[in-house]
Amino acid sequence: MANQYVDIDTLKFLLYKVHNLEEVLQQSKYEDYDKDSIELLLNSVKEFSDKELYPYFREMDENPAHFKDGEIVVHPQVRKYMKAGGEMGFISGGFPYEDGGMQLPSMVINASAFIQDAANNHLPGYIGLTVGSAELITHFGNKELNETYVPKMLEGTWGGTMCLTEPQAGSSLSDIITSATPDGDAYKIHGQKIFISGGDYQGAENIVHLVLARVKGAPAGTKGISLFVVPKNRPDKNGTLTPNDVQTVADFEKMGQRGYCTTHLFFGDKEDCKGWLVGEENKGLKYMFLMMNGARIAVGRGAAAIASAAYQASLNYANERAQGRKLTSTGKKDANEEQTLIINHPDVRRMLLLQKVVTEGSLSLVFLAAKYHDLSQSHADKEEREKYNLLLEIMTPVVKTYPSEMGRIAVDNGLQILGGYGFCSDYVLQQYFRDIRISALYEGTTGIQSQDLLGRKITMHNGKALQLLSEEITNSIKASMAHTALAPHAKKLAEKLELTQKVLKSLMGYAMKGDYERFLADATPFMEFFSNIVLGWVWLGIAEEAQNALLTGSKENSMEFYENKIHAMRFYFKYELPKTNGLAEILMDNQDLTVGTNETIFK
Amino acid sequence: MANQYVDIDTLKFLLYKVHNLEEVLQQSKYEDYDKDSIELLLNSVKEFSDKELYPYFREMDENPAHFKDGEIVVHPQVRKYMKAGGEMGFISGGFPYEDGGMQLPSMVINASAFIQDAANNHLPGYIGLTVGSAELITHFGNKELNETYVPKMLEGTWGGTMCLTEPQAGSSLSDIITSATPDGDAYKIHGQKIFISGGDYQGAENIVHLVLARVKGAPAGTKGISLFVVPKNRPDKNGTLTPNDVQTVADFEKMGQRGYCTTHLFFGDKEDCKGWLVGEENKGLKYMFLMMNGARIAVGRGAAAIASAAYQASLNYANERAQGRKLTSTGKKDANEEQTLIINHPDVRRMLLLQKVVTEGSLSLVFLAAKYHDLSQSHADKEEREKYNLLLEIMTPVVKTYPSEMGRIAVDNGLQILGGYGFCSDYVLQQYFRDIRISALYEGTTGIQSQDLLGRKITMHNGKALQLLSEEITNSIKASMAHTALAPHAKKLAEKLELTQKVLKSLMGYAMKGDYERFLADATPFMEFFSNIVLGWVWLGIAEEAQNALLTGSKENSMEFYENKIHAMRFYFKYELPKTNGLAEILMDNQDLTVGTNETIFK
Repeated sequence: MANQYVDIDTLKFLLYKVHNLEEVLQQSKYEDYDKDSIELLLNSVKEFSDKELYPYFREMDENPAHFKDGEIVVHPQVRKYMKAGGEMGFISGGFPYEDGGMQLPSMVINASAFIQDAANNHLPGYIGLTVGSAELITHFGNKELNETYVPKMLEGTWGGTMCLTEPQAGSSLSDIITSATPDGDAYKIHGQKIFISGGDYQGAENIVHLVLARVKGAPAGTKGISLFVVPKNRPDKNGTLTPNDVQTVADFEKMGQRGYCTTHLFFGDKEDCKGWLVGEENKGLKYMFLMMNGARIAVGRGAAAIASAAYQASLNYANERAQGRKLTSTGKKDANEEQTLIINHPDVRRMLLLQKVVTEGSLSLVFLAAKYHDLSQSHADKEEREKYNLLLEIMTPVVKTYPSEMGRIAVDNGLQILGGYGFCSDYVLQQYFRDIRISALYEGTTGIQSQDLLGRKITMHNGKALQLLSEEITNSIKASMAHTALAPHAKKLAEKLELTQKVLKSLMGYAMKGDYERFLADATPFMEFFSNIVLGWVWLGIAEEAQNALLTGSKENSMEFYENKIHAMRFYFKYELPKTNGLAEILMDNQDLTVGTNETIFK
Repeated sequence: MANQYVDIDTLKFLLYKVHNLEEVLQQSKYEDYDKDSIELLLNSVKEFSDKELYPYFREMDENPAHFKDGEIVVHPQVRKYMKAGGEMGFISGGFPYEDGGMQLPSMVINASAFIQDAANNHLPGYIGLTVGSAELITHFGNKELNETYVPKMLEGTWGGTMCLTEPQAGSSLSDIITSATPDGDAYKIHGQKIFISGGDYQGAENIVHLVLARVKGAPAGTKGISLFVVPKNRPDKNGTLTPNDVQTVADFEKMGQRGYCTTHLFFGDKEDCKGWLVGEENKGLKYMFLMMNGARIAVGRGAAAIASAAYQASLNYANERAQGRKLTSTGKKDANEEQTLIINHPDVRRMLLLQKVVTEGSLSLVFLAAKYHDLSQSHADKEEREKYNLLLEIMTPVVKTYPSEMGRIAVDNGLQILGGYGFCSDYVLQQYFRDIRISALYEGTTGIQSQDLLGRKITMHNGKALQLLSEEITNSIKASMAHTALAPHAKKLAEKLELTQKVLKSLMGYAMKGDYERFLADATPFMEFFSNIVLGWVWLGIAEEAQNALLTGSKENSMEFYENKIHAMRFYFKYELPKTNGLAEILMDNQDLTVGTNETIFK
């Protein structure tokens, strides 16, 4: 049977071979797991997703979450999924044993979540945010908060959210004005939050909001923000729940991901909303951002997963739809011939191959970041942990952004393959096209990620993270140079690494002169340039592993499977990597066209 | 007041100055018009669009056209618009006096339609297809068909459609199987047509379908297709209407442009559907394609217009939304400062300028093609008419494709400027994002246009069309070289023209060897390459006119207006033109990655 939403063989090849999961499983933290146990787990996730996620994907779009009589109505599958997620360990999977978790590596958690995201991207967010908010409590909350909230969250009985955005504070979190006033052992919370994913839904026993707010008298800006646990319903010692004056006032209607509710919440309208401080006052944003790497990787993974599902859907269509004929050597077509399947048209193949390199490259990137995460947490050697942490830091904005931006283009190509049908609701491509559009906005827009990459990550510790990444890339280049089939691509990648240095030298000139605005003005084209080269490295890595498998005669996949990976790498190097030529020219052009002008340039 | 959907000053500058409408008005065909009369006409179109089109744009999306009880329910504004379009000459505008038209130049028709498209892209198609189908009758139909159908169509009482696509014949029109059997003075029509825009709607007195069908015994392929007038209701000599067995069986639900119905029609289910031959048998596709240039320009214009409306909407948002602060020279922000308008962030300016160059460049391209059309029809000199006809031929696929492809990216950037709000139904950007997605599919997909450009237009008459276009571009380069401010850009464009020759020489190698499949395999990247350079020329032309206006101290617009056009040209040359570097590398790479492989490469 054709794959419906994920190519599980490729997923496993990337996880086990290209990124060598066993290297992570060898760390003592993960000693209870081996490849066989992970294999069983992933197979059960796939089976679950086939049955409980994929079949509800279309109807969650057609019957979107909506606000009615003070509540948000969601598809019944939401509660079923939360419960199953608790039972199957989707929520607790990554937590340490002492917090009631399964202590699985992030690589495995991401593999499992990718399958679920690809099957139905409207559902996993409910669990993702419950995980994120429970993590904030286990990392920074006191014993009482842990005992009161975490078990119920990990079992899927209570949902969790992250409440950051306010109407006047979106990308600019320093402008948060939700207030917290000390009140006995707790604080009185007052303010409104918007864009709260999974913020409330009919029948939820409780929702635990992790809320950024400002304690009266705190300093302006990001240094005056604190973090609070603010439940929808306050539990007393006996577990009895009392409403906590958290009012749901609306659900945002959206273009896509419509089964995943996005709420507008009002805290303390009746002056009876209590919040409990997490950690210390004024450190809330710091805590939140310590959890942000995971959230950003999750967004990139979700985008990669949507691109995966769109790729499979358009590939299946291209394998079934007959239209047109192949050109003969006279440049004409023979109308008496039968129509050919559209997969035989070079332009359709180009679009499919683009989808393939973006999808598989993005998933490989996600596993890479997850591996950095795991080794930064579990490696026996402190220096190695620091090294992996820096690698994770520099890769995070890329993992968030590349799949979100290029995944959207991949899905767009998938839709195009269907012709007019791609635009019609009868086919699923238009839903993927709408759904994936959120990824470049969630958890820091592409502009924000790009400023993080160039303004913070590239320069951090005097460029140490970039240096470590360059070493990793250089090691891959050396390894690939040994294979005749890969050497030209390895050489090309080495040139691009040099080009990166040249571009950065040119940009750094502005920072040295104190012109930070100009330094960061083209951060977004820089992100496109940098991530394109990173993906070249990712694809060279995939091809090298495939080449090794061919040389050793690996039987895990067919010879064709491995050859196709090398073919895809070549496609990436031919059709994608050359974009960096133009981007480098843009980045090294010293004209000021977006700074040093004023808003009247649009008159 | 801020512009809501169109920058009318720019439209007029492009129409009157950059493309010198008066050169066309000097032709004897258009001698009844002068600039003043056109100015009055355009102002009335703008006023009409403000009142009758723009206010209904959101509700036509929210209450889409839909099939109910055998009919298609559309927004009541559809019939009102058809009637007004008849009265105001929107339908008859371009027709010659002898057909009851106003004999307006295509440049003016396109200016008028652009304003309407930008105000509400769900409506003008109803008129556009009525125009197209009436044109087929006036050009190729006999006197009786003309007298029976055209007057009712031009007055907006009867709608018109073009019926090409069938379930098995989309991009491949040679596979049409709808049949026509001679039956007295007419033919019996039998078959089904899909994706018929404006194909039927509640309360329409009559719909006149121009149907491609195959007369029994006709040759296979495109040479056996004939064109028929098939009305929904047959009029007798007295004008009494009798149902003609044209059954509406469904309306396609779509992701966007939801107010514009897209129907599935069944002709002759009860063996009582009559059609009247237009012109001669087996020449139907030829007739259809003689009208296709206009239809393709209309699609490009519509895309440019959606991009225009999205640009104005995101520009207005960027001028009102405060978020974040400017970076200081230490690279930090001062949290005590007030938030700045987002238009002051360089990344937002970059996205706005991208929208501006795509939108205004696309509109300029549309006027250029319309001017070629007008001069090809009206110039006193036959050789000049032929020259303009060839220029129109080569430009048509570009005018269809560039706004459709880059307009989509422009709208995407517009949505991004709004952050999370861009994804929400409360704001209009998500609607433009959905609406514009159809443009790359309508009237021949981007892949089809690209094959038309490279496989037909570039090579036609031994490359004559390309040679003429190169001369036009070279003339612009020479003119711009005279201005110090423009000379560097003129020089850059000359380099790109040389690069085009180099790329084409490389591609032609495959055609010479008879490897047409490989020759056309990268037609789509070639389209991107070629149209990007054409747009560089378009922008150089705009900048030259602006520079002349500055030098002569023109008072028609502010000095700032002209300076901003030159600024936008610089932006195009800095941020867009360099893409051609990478595209040239792709196009000259001789690896075969999409041809010479088989469909198992996706395994």
